[in-house]
Amino acid sequence: MRRAWIISIGTELTLGQSVDTNSAWLSQQLAALGIRVERHVTIADEHAPLVDVLRQSAGSSDLVVVTGGLGPTDDDLTRAALAEAANTRLERDQAALERIRAFFAKRNRPMPERNCVQADVPIGGRSLPNDRGTAPGVFIAMCGTAIYALPGVPFEMKAMFEAQVAPEIRTAAKGRVVRSRVVRTFGRPESEIGEQLSDLMARGRNPEVGTTADMGDIGVRINAIADSAEACDALLEREEREVRRRLGPAVYGRDADTLAVAVGRMLAERGQTVSVAESCTGGMLGAILTDVPGSSRYFLGGVIAYANEVKIKRLDVPAELLRRHGAVSEETAAAMAAGARAAFESTYALATTGVAGPDGGSPEKPVGMVCFGIAGPASVRARTIRYGETLPRGVIRHWAARTALNLLRMELG
Amino acid sequence: MRRAWIISIGTELTLGQSVDTNSAWLSQQLAALGIRVERHVTIADEHAPLVDVLRQSAGSSDLVVVTGGLGPTDDDLTRAALAEAANTRLERDQAALERIRAFFAKRNRPMPERNCVQADVPIGGRSLPNDRGTAPGVFIAMCGTAIYALPGVPFEMKAMFEAQVAPEIRTAAKGRVVRSRVVRTFGRPESEIGEQLSDLMARGRNPEVGTTADMGDIGVRINAIADSAEACDALLEREEREVRRRLGPAVYGRDADTLAVAVGRMLAERGQTVSVAESCTGGMLGAILTDVPGSSRYFLGGVIAYANEVKIKRLDVPAELLRRHGAVSEETAAAMAAGARAAFESTYALATTGVAGPDGGSPEKPVGMVCFGIAGPASVRARTIRYGETLPRGVIRHWAARTALNLLRMELG
Repeated sequence: MRRAWIISIGTELTLGQSVDTNSAWLSQQLAALGIRVERHVTIADEHAPLVDVLRQSAGSSDLVVVTGGLGPTDDDLTRAALAEAANTRLERDQAALERIRAFFAKRNRPMPERNCVQADVPIGGRSLPNDRGTAPGVFIAMCGTAIYALPGVPFEMKAMFEAQVAPEIRTAAKGRVVRSRVVRTFGRPESEIGEQLSDLMARGRNPEVGTTADMGDIGVRINAIADSAEACDALLEREEREVRRRLGPAVYGRDADTLAVAVGRMLAERGQTVSVAESCTGGMLGAILTDVPGSSRYFLGGVIAYANEVKIKRLDVPAELLRRHGAVSEETAAAMAAGARAAFESTYALATTGVAGPDGGSPEKPVGMVCFGIAGPASVRARTIRYGETLPRGVIRHWAARTALNLLRMELG
Repeated sequence: MRRAWIISIGTELTLGQSVDTNSAWLSQQLAALGIRVERHVTIADEHAPLVDVLRQSAGSSDLVVVTGGLGPTDDDLTRAALAEAANTRLERDQAALERIRAFFAKRNRPMPERNCVQADVPIGGRSLPNDRGTAPGVFIAMCGTAIYALPGVPFEMKAMFEAQVAPEIRTAAKGRVVRSRVVRTFGRPESEIGEQLSDLMARGRNPEVGTTADMGDIGVRINAIADSAEACDALLEREEREVRRRLGPAVYGRDADTLAVAVGRMLAERGQTVSVAESCTGGMLGAILTDVPGSSRYFLGGVIAYANEVKIKRLDVPAELLRRHGAVSEETAAAMAAGARAAFESTYALATTGVAGPDGGSPEKPVGMVCFGIAGPASVRARTIRYGETLPRGVIRHWAARTALNLLRMELG
C-alpha cells in the first residue's frame, strides 16, 4: 500500500458552509503510516458523481478513505454508492443492526426505524463498528483497492480510524516509512530561498524539499521515505543540516515553532525579559508573544499607545520630538522602545508605529510604512519597512508584529 | 454558468500540513453568484495528475477555480500544467513581467531572475494582475470551460477573486440572482438560536436560513434567489427583520460587521472613548479594537499588564488587593478597569484577567476562568465566565477578548 485518496462527502462542504478538516487530519495519519496521499476529493451529497469518484479512486490508488454520507437520512448516499461502484447490492448486516440498537438502548432511547439502513453493507464488504455514534463504517475491496468509509463527524471518524483502520494499514504496509519536518525561516523572500535550495528542490529526489509562504514566514518542508523510522530520520537530519547551513540566520525554528516561540525560548534561556510599546499593531505584538504558554517568564507587559497623548504620558516620548518627526518616524519608534524599557524595567523593549491604512497615508509616509524601535542593554535602534500600499490593514499589522519579533530574534542571535 | 469545480494545489495540503480554507471561501463566493460547486479536488505539486485533473474538470463543469502552484520555484507547476492540459505552450507576457518588476521596484528590492517565470501564460490565455504579491493569476478557456488560476496565499487569492473573477462571472451568469446576508449575534448558544428560528430554517424555503458558529459569535445566514436584485433584496429585507425581531439584543450587526466594528460605531456616534487593561488576553483586545480602520477616533490605548508588578505600577491596582484576592479575581478585574480609565482618561475601560492555560489552573480558579472588569462614567463592575477547562489557550483568549467587547456593547446598548 503506497498511494491513497481521501474522499469527503457533504453538500455543506461544497457550499463552503464547513471547512473540511478531516482530510488534513487523515493525510497526517496516513503519512505517518508511510502512505502518500495523492488527492483529496470533496463532493456534494449526490449519487452519480459519488459512484464516479469511487470508481476513479479505486483505479488510481491502493487505499481510499471516505468520510461522510453514512447517516440515516435520504441525503446519506455512501452505502448505496459503494454498492453500485462495486457492481453489487446492499445487504443488511444483523450484527451491525444489533450494535445500533444497543447504542440507542444504552441511552434509553427507542431506535427510529430509519436508522436500520445504517446496518446495510455492500455484499463482499464488512461493517466497521462505531462506539461513539450510530453510523457504522464500511470496508470493501474494489479492484484490489482497500476502501474504508467512515462517518464525517470528526470525533467518531478519528476514533474509528485509530482503532480499526490504522492497525490494518500498518499490517498491510509494513516496511515503508514516510516522515517530514519543516524548517522555518523569516525575513527572506520565497524566491531567494528557492534559488538557494534549487538543487535540493529538484523533482524526484528523496528527501523531497518544497517551500510554503505566509507573509514573510517561509517554511521549507522536507519529506523522506525509507524502510525504517531510523533511516527516515537520518535522511531528514542530513537534509535539515544542509538547509540550515545554506539559509543561515534566516532559520528560526522547526515544525510547530513560531517566531514568538523561538524568541521566547531565547529570552527564557538567558533569563531576560521583554516589554512592548505598540501603536499601529495595537496590542497584536503582545497578543502573539502571550499566545505561547509560559510566556509570563519573559514577557512583562506593554503599553498600547494608540493616541499621541499616550505616547507622551505613558512612554515619555517628548512632545517636541513627536511634533518635529511625527508619530510615524524612526525617532518616535526609538523613543517609544526606550520609554517602554524604562517603564517596565525589561531587558529589551520593542516598539511599532506605522500607517496600517486604508487611510492616513501620504507620499512620504504611505500606507504600509512601519517604523520599529528596539531598545536593549547596549543600544536603542530603529528601522523602517514599507510593506506595500495595496496590502490590507490586517496583513500589514500582522506582518509588522512578526517583523518586530524577528528584529528581537536577530538582536538576541 | 452553473456548475464549478475548485482545484487546490500543494503538497502541504495533501500531506495534511495545512488545512485548505480557500476552497470553502471560494464555494461561498460562488454560491452567492448563483453557481453550484460540485467538487473540490486537492492534489500534490505533481505535473501529470494536475494535467489530468484540469482536463477532467474542463470536461465536467462550466467554471474551474484553481488555487496554488503559481510561485516562482520549481515546485510551482500550475502554469505548465495549464499549458499542457490545453495542448499549447507557455509564452512570456511582457506586461505581466513589467508588473512583477514594478512590484519589486516599489519595495526597493531587485527582482530575482527566477521570478520571470511568473509572467508565463499559456498561449490563448491571459495574465491576471496581482497587486498584493508577485504571482499573477492565469485565465484560459478550455473546451468552453472558464479556468481561473489564482495564487494559494489567501489574501492575494481573495482580492483577485473579488476584483477580477467575480465581475466576469456576474456578467456571464446574468438573469438569475442569488444574494445573501448574515445577521450577526453574540452571547447566545447556537442551539437556542436554532430553536427560535426553526421554522425559518426548514429545508427548501426561499430565502434559506442557516447558522454558523464561531466561539459565541453565531451568524444567521440568509440566502435568497430571485429574478432580479431588487426582488432578492426584498426577500432578504423581510427575512432579516423577522430574524432580528426574534433574536432581539443578541444581534449586534450584519455581514462584515464584527463586535469591534459594532462597538466602535456606538462609541464614535456618542463621541466617547475606550481604553483597555489586559492580562490574560495579552494585547488581543486592543488588537481586535484597532483592527477597525479609523479606530483612533475612540480607542486611546491600553496597558498589557501581564506581570503583577505592572498591574500595581501602571494601573494602580493596590498590592494588598492583589494579595488578598489574587490576580484572577473580580476585585482585580474591576481595579484594573478603574485604573485604566483613570490613566487614559477614557469614557470606558475594559479589563481581562484569567487562566488561559494549559497550566496554572486550580480547583477554585480552573483553566478557562476569566474575570472581566468594565469601568464607565456611572460605575465599575466585574463578571466571571468559565469557558471550560478543556479548551485550548488560543480559544479561551480569543473568546475572552470578544466577551469583553460584548460587555461594552451591552453597556452602551
